[in-house]
Amino acid sequence: MGAVREALDALSLVDHHCHGTVAADLDREAFEPLLTEGDAWPGVSPFDSPVGVAVRRHCAPLLDLPRHAPVEQYLARRSELGRREVQRRFLRASGTDVFCVDTGFAPDRLTTPREIAEAAGGAAYEVVRLESVAESVRAAGVEPDAYAEAFRAAALAAVRRPRVVGVKSVAAYRTGFDLDPARPSDAEVTGAARHWTARGGRLDDPVLVRHLLWTAVDLGLPLQLHTGFGDNDIRLHRADPARLTDWLHLTAGTVPVLLLHCWPYQRQAAYLAAVFEQVYLDVGLTLHHVGPARAGAVLAEALEITPFRKLLYSSDAYGVPEFFHLGALAFRQGLAGLLQERVDADELSLPDALRIARWAGRDNARRVYRFPDDSPGGS
Amino acid sequence: MGAVREALDALSLVDHHCHGTVAADLDREAFEPLLTEGDAWPGVSPFDSPVGVAVRRHCAPLLDLPRHAPVEQYLARRSELGRREVQRRFLRASGTDVFCVDTGFAPDRLTTPREIAEAAGGAAYEVVRLESVAESVRAAGVEPDAYAEAFRAAALAAVRRPRVVGVKSVAAYRTGFDLDPARPSDAEVTGAARHWTARGGRLDDPVLVRHLLWTAVDLGLPLQLHTGFGDNDIRLHRADPARLTDWLHLTAGTVPVLLLHCWPYQRQAAYLAAVFEQVYLDVGLTLHHVGPARAGAVLAEALEITPFRKLLYSSDAYGVPEFFHLGALAFRQGLAGLLQERVDADELSLPDALRIARWAGRDNARRVYRFPDDSPGGS
Amino acid sequence: MGAVREALDALSLVDHHCHGTVAADLDREAFEPLLTEGDAWPGVSPFDSPVGVAVRRHCAPLLDLPRHAPVEQYLARRSELGRREVQRRFLRASGTDVFCVDTGFAPDRLTTPREIAEAAGGAAYEVVRLESVAESVRAAGVEPDAYAEAFRAAALAAVRRPRVVGVKSVAAYRTGFDLDPARPSDAEVTGAARHWTARGGRLDDPVLVRHLLWTAVDLGLPLQLHTGFGDNDIRLHRADPARLTDWLHLTAGTVPVLLLHCWPYQRQAAYLAAVFEQVYLDVGLTLHHVGPARAGAVLAEALEITPFRKLLYSSDAYGVPEFFHLGALAFRQGLAGLLQERVDADELSLPDALRIARWAGRDNARRVYRFPDDSPGGS
Repeated sequence: MGAVREALDALSLVDHHCHGTVAADLDREAFEPLLTEGDAWPGVSPFDSPVGVAVRRHCAPLLDLPRHAPVEQYLARRSELGRREVQRRFLRASGTDVFCVDTGFAPDRLTTPREIAEAAGGAAYEVVRLESVAESVRAAGVEPDAYAEAFRAAALAAVRRPRVVGVKSVAAYRTGFDLDPARPSDAEVTGAARHWTARGGRLDDPVLVRHLLWTAVDLGLPLQLHTGFGDNDIRLHRADPARLTDWLHLTAGTVPVLLLHCWPYQRQAAYLAAVFEQVYLDVGLTLHHVGPARAGAVLAEALEITPFRKLLYSSDAYGVPEFFHLGALAFRQGLAGLLQERVDADELSLPDALRIARWAGRDNARRVYRFPDDSPGGS
Repeated sequence: MGAVREALDALSLVDHHCHGTVAADLDREAFEPLLTEGDAWPGVSPFDSPVGVAVRRHCAPLLDLPRHAPVEQYLARRSELGRREVQRRFLRASGTDVFCVDTGFAPDRLTTPREIAEAAGGAAYEVVRLESVAESVRAAGVEPDAYAEAFRAAALAAVRRPRVVGVKSVAAYRTGFDLDPARPSDAEVTGAARHWTARGGRLDDPVLVRHLLWTAVDLGLPLQLHTGFGDNDIRLHRADPARLTDWLHLTAGTVPVLLLHCWPYQRQAAYLAAVFEQVYLDVGLTLHHVGPARAGAVLAEALEITPFRKLLYSSDAYGVPEFFHLGALAFRQGLAGLLQERVDADELSLPDALRIARWAGRDNARRVYRFPDDSPGGS
Repeated sequence: MGAVREALDALSLVDHHCHGTVAADLDREAFEPLLTEGDAWPGVSPFDSPVGVAVRRHCAPLLDLPRHAPVEQYLARRSELGRREVQRRFLRASGTDVFCVDTGFAPDRLTTPREIAEAAGGAAYEVVRLESVAESVRAAGVEPDAYAEAFRAAALAAVRRPRVVGVKSVAAYRTGFDLDPARPSDAEVTGAARHWTARGGRLDDPVLVRHLLWTAVDLGLPLQLHTGFGDNDIRLHRADPARLTDWLHLTAGTVPVLLLHCWPYQRQAAYLAAVFEQVYLDVGLTLHHVGPARAGAVLAEALEITPFRKLLYSSDAYGVPEFFHLGALAFRQGLAGLLQERVDADELSLPDALRIARWAGRDNARRVYRFPDDSPGGS
């Protein structure tokens, strides 16, 4: 094994974007749909996919099974061990000691940041999903002309809770990024809020999404933006982060913007990270979906022009703890592979390679989020 | 040679999308333009391209010539053997025993499915190009308010012919995919048909293209959609299959949708195949144009997240029989290369690799098209 | 070293698109921002990027320093040698004997084509940036209804100067390519000129940009178009060259169109080069930004379907002479790597590989630009 891989294996990662896992034991019917961004389809097992073979290859051994174990054996052993032990094993194996957890999606079903931290023996921080805050404000009842202030107050209250280190928007899902980049006027917001409070449903009004993004700027915390790959609720081409350019111009000098996932627009994201001081990126979610076999190829594209202080690690694990392990493994293996290859070709010095590995795996996130206390056990 | 390549070489492929070849002997002037999606340009030989060097490398030996034979020698030998023998050699070499032939483009110039089947010693089925059906309806004369029903009746008659297994649309060429996804009303169709029947020309009215796509849904057969790469009649960015997302939502649960070609949007196509049950993809056409030297790289991107039951093989051979051989070779070499590499790295078990190879090369197509009789010689 | 690399190392390149370098000695504060398409950001050195490590690896030895020299040492040695010696070393090392220099951006700060030619021991030609011509016309004062003719006359005068071999447009920066492709009417141009002459500022009116592109067609010289990657003034997705398709149809049969940079749309550019006779491409700028470690991967995508007479070499060096060397090195190393790999795999014959290398590095540019005198020392 090369020196870069050894260093990355020894490095405790900061996972700057993840979710909880389902807080219940999972049978096959419950487990399989969590493997995929699609649904479970009759006659087609979600295991018959790149992520499925990666789970059987890389997760089975952690459950004391042979590599490439059959699905039935894998699920039986999983049940036998019980969800807490399974979670503990994968979280420990991930070698992650700081987790930034998006708590705004399906919080009732998922483990909390505290549970993740305890199982991992690390620290967990919270990322506030602003769409959930806005939808809570609407659900609680609000006059249209009071919406802007009520949302701002609720968001402020949410981010002032202890251990909150950032906010997140899923604007990519709701409208995509072809938005008027300007901050909407009060009158526009009130008008849009009138429609929304009458109509209900999730926040997907373009004016209110813009208002949400600008409120995020006011909050002053790092802002995570889902871009690219997701479930079929995305219109992928509208989630190309290049479409954020006008908004990034208007908000330059304010908060750090962290482009999540990015695939297949990792080069577009890299461009933004190269030309806007406030822009960072990761290829989370993608890493476990493409698996260790392709993580290096995706990372190589993401890193073609990305300044080395701008790449972060995230697993975007959701639902099953396997993804904490698989994301970390794919990241380490992929990044080490490409850096070591460059060291071996004398395109990069070993000290530089090690520095880049530490930055991407840990220090860039620390620099952006300024964790109040990221010592293990600090949660 | 690795075990995966051996297995793929021994596998009889299903070529789920191809065309006939020109039913005439071809001199250099006639042959060269068929090598390319461009035209023949003065001073630039179409042989000076990736597909050109692939033909000289991989097709020359089948004509008893050395690898990399000069163009003149290649064309002279081709003429000497005659078109039937040339066709027979390339079709046999392709190791394909089922062909789904798009019969809707230039049928007067091209060999029929029966001729392909006989030369290959395999079976051929037919794919009905719906734009050609619509244009025939218009050419035969139809009142605008009778167009919808006349087109539907003609399409139904076309697909009820024996050996028809699917339909195809070239909407990508006519309007691109930025269409209102909803089924158009009868009044809209009549209005658009009034303009079209008066104006003539090919079917490129957005309302009528939408109507065609929805009629395809009603027909109940697998629907092939050209996406991505083609000749200069395409606006490439409008043929990005991600732009079909809204329409795929509305038509979920109806017919299988097979995204053809896809390049350079193979990742976007893979995303759709991963999140929509009804979506499948191939990288036909691309395979012979990029040649065996790059087919593996393109397939690797296409497979990054594609579920293994969703990738199909097609040659999209058109005009010259070389492309049946070259497409099949590029597919086998590219897919075997990437699967074997993963087996060698222990990222994939050999049984899984062999299963994926069989699915992509044959069984996924059988599952989608349910050929009535795909035994060799069954045509 | 393989035969292809040897041949490419021995080949004097034609750099069909570059700029001058800053005609002053540069301290760290002045040097670092020139390394990047972004600005210099507090706490983040532009050296911590792919281009930065490539400079330390490949440029340091030309300054008599060890590979991967520390930044401070690199800059100190650079100062010690002085800008003329530094420029001479990098230009000589580039092995380039013909330069086409865009003289329309920041000409007061930059070395002239003559200086470049002298330092390199080669010949330099000039490329006229049409936006600069138009802005000079406006700055000199022009009535709106005289603008079209004044611009045409000024452009004609500019291109009739000795050693002008082409024109360039940065329409990608000003409006992007989602333009009405048709030539604007005189009335439209006058109306737009009225607004522009009143408002001032740079040329970014869509009608005037269209007019500029059509005036370029009238001039009859090869037209270079910036596409894809640039600084944050670009909206990357609007600089996708596929969006030029309608305009390319309308202008087919007129002037050669050279798509510059292209990344990350190199496949889209390759498509256009494959289907439009008049379209050519390079991946300049990208080559030094991604560095030799990734230049081969980008070139491999660019060459997937590009006819071999359609790829050109450019450095797009700007500001610092390092980029002449780094661009040439990345091009030679990347192209030789991919061609040699194909020769080794017997996918390509060695004579074909050598021919492709000569075409891309030199002869395709000679064919397009028809240099009046490109013998070394001819400037």
